[in-house]
Amino acid sequence: MESLSHQDVTILLAGLGVLLAAARLLGEIARRFQLPAVFGEILAGILLGPTVLGALAPNFSNLLFPRSGTGALLLDGMVTLAIVLFLLVAGMEADISTVWRQGRAVATVGLAGIVFPFATGFAMAWYLPGLMGREPGAAPLIFALFIATALSISALPVIAKTLMDLDLYRSDLGMMIVAAAVFNDLIGWIIFAVILGMMGVTGSDAFSIGSTIILTLLFTLMMLTVARWSIHRMLPWIQAHASWPGGQLGFTLSVALLGAAFTEWIGVHAIFGSFLVGVAMGDTPHFRERIRGVIDQFVSFFFAPLFFASIGLKVNFVEHFDPLLVLVVLVVACLGKVLGCGLGGRLAGLSPRESWAIGFGMNARGAMEIILGLLALRFGLIGEPLFVALVIMAIVTSLMSGPAMQSILRLKKPRRFINFLPSRGLVRLQAHDRDAAIAELAGTLGPVEGISVETVVEAVRARERLMATGLGYGVAVPHARLAGLSEPVVVLGLSAAGIDFNAPDGKTAQFILLILTPEDDNGAQVQILADIARTFRQREFRQAALEVSGMTEFLALVKSTTDG
Amino acid sequence: MESLSHQDVTILLAGLGVLLAAARLLGEIARRFQLPAVFGEILAGILLGPTVLGALAPNFSNLLFPRSGTGALLLDGMVTLAIVLFLLVAGMEADISTVWRQGRAVATVGLAGIVFPFATGFAMAWYLPGLMGREPGAAPLIFALFIATALSISALPVIAKTLMDLDLYRSDLGMMIVAAAVFNDLIGWIIFAVILGMMGVTGSDAFSIGSTIILTLLFTLMMLTVARWSIHRMLPWIQAHASWPGGQLGFTLSVALLGAAFTEWIGVHAIFGSFLVGVAMGDTPHFRERIRGVIDQFVSFFFAPLFFASIGLKVNFVEHFDPLLVLVVLVVACLGKVLGCGLGGRLAGLSPRESWAIGFGMNARGAMEIILGLLALRFGLIGEPLFVALVIMAIVTSLMSGPAMQSILRLKKPRRFINFLPSRGLVRLQAHDRDAAIAELAGTLGPVEGISVETVVEAVRARERLMATGLGYGVAVPHARLAGLSEPVVVLGLSAAGIDFNAPDGKTAQFILLILTPEDDNGAQVQILADIARTFRQREFRQAALEVSGMTEFLALVKSTTDG
Repeated sequence: MESLSHQDVTILLAGLGVLLAAARLLGEIARRFQLPAVFGEILAGILLGPTVLGALAPNFSNLLFPRSGTGALLLDGMVTLAIVLFLLVAGMEADISTVWRQGRAVATVGLAGIVFPFATGFAMAWYLPGLMGREPGAAPLIFALFIATALSISALPVIAKTLMDLDLYRSDLGMMIVAAAVFNDLIGWIIFAVILGMMGVTGSDAFSIGSTIILTLLFTLMMLTVARWSIHRMLPWIQAHASWPGGQLGFTLSVALLGAAFTEWIGVHAIFGSFLVGVAMGDTPHFRERIRGVIDQFVSFFFAPLFFASIGLKVNFVEHFDPLLVLVVLVVACLGKVLGCGLGGRLAGLSPRESWAIGFGMNARGAMEIILGLLALRFGLIGEPLFVALVIMAIVTSLMSGPAMQSILRLKKPRRFINFLPSRGLVRLQAHDRDAAIAELAGTLGPVEGISVETVVEAVRARERLMATGLGYGVAVPHARLAGLSEPVVVLGLSAAGIDFNAPDGKTAQFILLILTPEDDNGAQVQILADIARTFRQREFRQAALEVSGMTEFLALVKSTTDG
Repeated sequence: MESLSHQDVTILLAGLGVLLAAARLLGEIARRFQLPAVFGEILAGILLGPTVLGALAPNFSNLLFPRSGTGALLLDGMVTLAIVLFLLVAGMEADISTVWRQGRAVATVGLAGIVFPFATGFAMAWYLPGLMGREPGAAPLIFALFIATALSISALPVIAKTLMDLDLYRSDLGMMIVAAAVFNDLIGWIIFAVILGMMGVTGSDAFSIGSTIILTLLFTLMMLTVARWSIHRMLPWIQAHASWPGGQLGFTLSVALLGAAFTEWIGVHAIFGSFLVGVAMGDTPHFRERIRGVIDQFVSFFFAPLFFASIGLKVNFVEHFDPLLVLVVLVVACLGKVLGCGLGGRLAGLSPRESWAIGFGMNARGAMEIILGLLALRFGLIGEPLFVALVIMAIVTSLMSGPAMQSILRLKKPRRFINFLPSRGLVRLQAHDRDAAIAELAGTLGPVEGISVETVVEAVRARERLMATGLGYGVAVPHARLAGLSEPVVVLGLSAAGIDFNAPDGKTAQFILLILTPEDDNGAQVQILADIARTFRQREFRQAALEVSGMTEFLALVKSTTDG
């Protein structure tokens, strides 16, 4: 049996390790800047691939991420497995009932989102072939169909990841976007199979185009009905009779792999199979949260970053860069998709704001355009500059879609108290009564934005006289609104002995949080108080919090307790 | 960038799906027969590989699990990733303090476990080369060294998995076996690097044998000191400042991949790197249980079954089968290892029973012998019959080790009450008082092993009169020992209204469990009662249990509540 050489193994493991580390690191940095993690993950690939590292240290980049031979194929295999499992998770998270409820809107958006960009792309490629970069030998009709398809297919994985990063995935809007993208992509891939047929290459070795279409529809229908029904019956049986959680995990993952293999075999892409398996599994009550969590977390933080980073590894974005071509492709792609889907959204009765959000959400392209472009390149239908333009278009639209939706929908992360704790904001109190504790906490903080410690103490004591701020269960929240403050500030004092804050349950407070908020920001105080109450209400959290050695351990504890 | 063909992707996904499904299924069946799951997983590979499926349907088997070309390399890449991540988990589970405590014993067992089989193997190959299958052109000294090494290297992954399956991994004995195996294997791989050097092929492309040895020792030392110290400081920082659990997961997995790449690069196997990274990560208190659980479960039920099943795919065990050679290799291998390690255990002051258990535990060979054999085959040092004999020896010793340790240590699974619930053993009670409830439960059960319902009712009521069996928190356990019963029987009655069983907390019982045990089996009653108390004490469990629709749902609930 043929096996990998010593060098192949070294390179595979080193490449995966570096790619994962870079993707996770830049993903975290993107989150810091309030961007979706996928932004940083794609960027990691561009930095490590031919564009940056490849230009600075070509031998090193080529060694770590080989562009041909066994190494390239191995990396491609890993990435394929990654994307298949990521789509399983996306499918499991999908809420199919929303889709049924919004059926008409989904069809309208999905259809408009393919007809518009398809028509625009076809017209441009047919009437202005030179501008769109048609190669001399390419057949005009096939070229126009290719461009039209390449501009029409949305990137389901990117869309799903962006929506998850923005916490929109399970919202009505998020589910509509995902359903429309599935609808759109299935049609797109079927058209692509037709084009391949016209070129004399079939997408599948075993099936004609007609069979591919029929089998795809049959498979989709079956997964949503018979397979779904059977899975709902099999899962409790497996849980009862097999080891736990091994039985359900093994079952889910092997069915997903087989579903993916099936759709790839019949000529549409593997990801549809695992996505539909995920949908069929997803909303059964027998599929316990823990199994879902294990698959979700391992895939989201191992496989997904690998896949998204790998996109940036594919091409050198400098060498084959044709600025005009890139601009034209990008503008045509965005106009067709954003306007088409936006119009579809309006037709379906959504608000202008939601319609634009759908337009930019569906505008994300991704791996599909790259796979499609690779095939077209291989068969001489397009040249390298157009391939680069397509990939840049795919990446730019993907990178745009998160921030664009964020700003259109005016999304803000809920404010958490830990975001306003300065690094010195944790103190073990010496004080034994309420007034001394307030003075000690304000003293720890020092003057804030020019407001003196005395002013702070006075304002907080005044508020405290109106009504005591003991919440019960050992927590007190002396607070005040201060004119001239631009941002909230929180200080946490720990008192082993406990200080009386006149709490409803009569207990003394071991956790005293001094909270200062801007005078005109109503929301801040409410959100921070609610967050503190929710966090400290957990007994295990309070016990562990009394033991922390400093701010780092305290933050770590809050994060792991509240899944934030 | 080179990428996989449509057919490669289909085959890769289908192959992985079938392999995973078969491995998990046979793993579960093995557990049913009280065997370690790894037994079933290896068997799955033998059934799907050239030996069985390959003989019955050669084209199908070759299509699904290609033996050369891209498909074979892809599968090998997946299996390599699988084994690397499995060893990370094994490392994380390892309890390093036990190893220090038992340092002398570990060294004695580890050393005896390599000197003995090495000497036996060398002597056999040197004095009886014909019997051991030396090829005509092979150099006698190199051949003898190869045989000696091949018989000396234990299979750390198989040993770790077997110990985990037997729940022995974190015991003192388990940790000693693992530590001795690590010690043994590091030496074994270094000798192997020396042999490759003598053959004019180096294990590493970049390092001499001397450098490999020095770098291996330095890396091991560094991981157990500096790296361990740094990781213990970095983990809380990551937890505090990165997303959770993504930060720690990404960090752990990428460090493991890089560690594995490093050890592969310097010329020992990749698995040592990830194992040592796991050891360095493992026992930090900052590494929360949930992260450990996510990695552990995904790896144990996805990657590990794929790896173990893949062993069986490597060769056709019928075609190149030489019964005498197989027998000789097997006997020499077992004698050397079992006696060597057993003697080592006795020298280290362990009991005879523990020494034998160590001998059979360390006797497991695995992937190492197969990788080693593949290299020797490629360089013409051995022929295919000897290769088959080595692989069979590896598999047989692996399969033996679990059952042998089980029987030597007389391990028994603790008896759970659900094992004695007949399929009709769940009933919604009509009865409103104690006597009626007992009669209704006994009636549901019917006569057992010839003992009439009346006898049962009388015995239980007699016991009940001695002392009421209400445990509190809504649970009652009327029970009796019956002469002539060979096995315990349990019936569960649910009473929505509640029946008074005179519980210490004054609550009526909603769960009434009738328990009948053999008269002479003291343990059964105690174990079953303890298990019931432990299971039903959880409030969430009781709430969910009142809602179950039938036995399957009830069993599923018990399994998922108690991690059984």
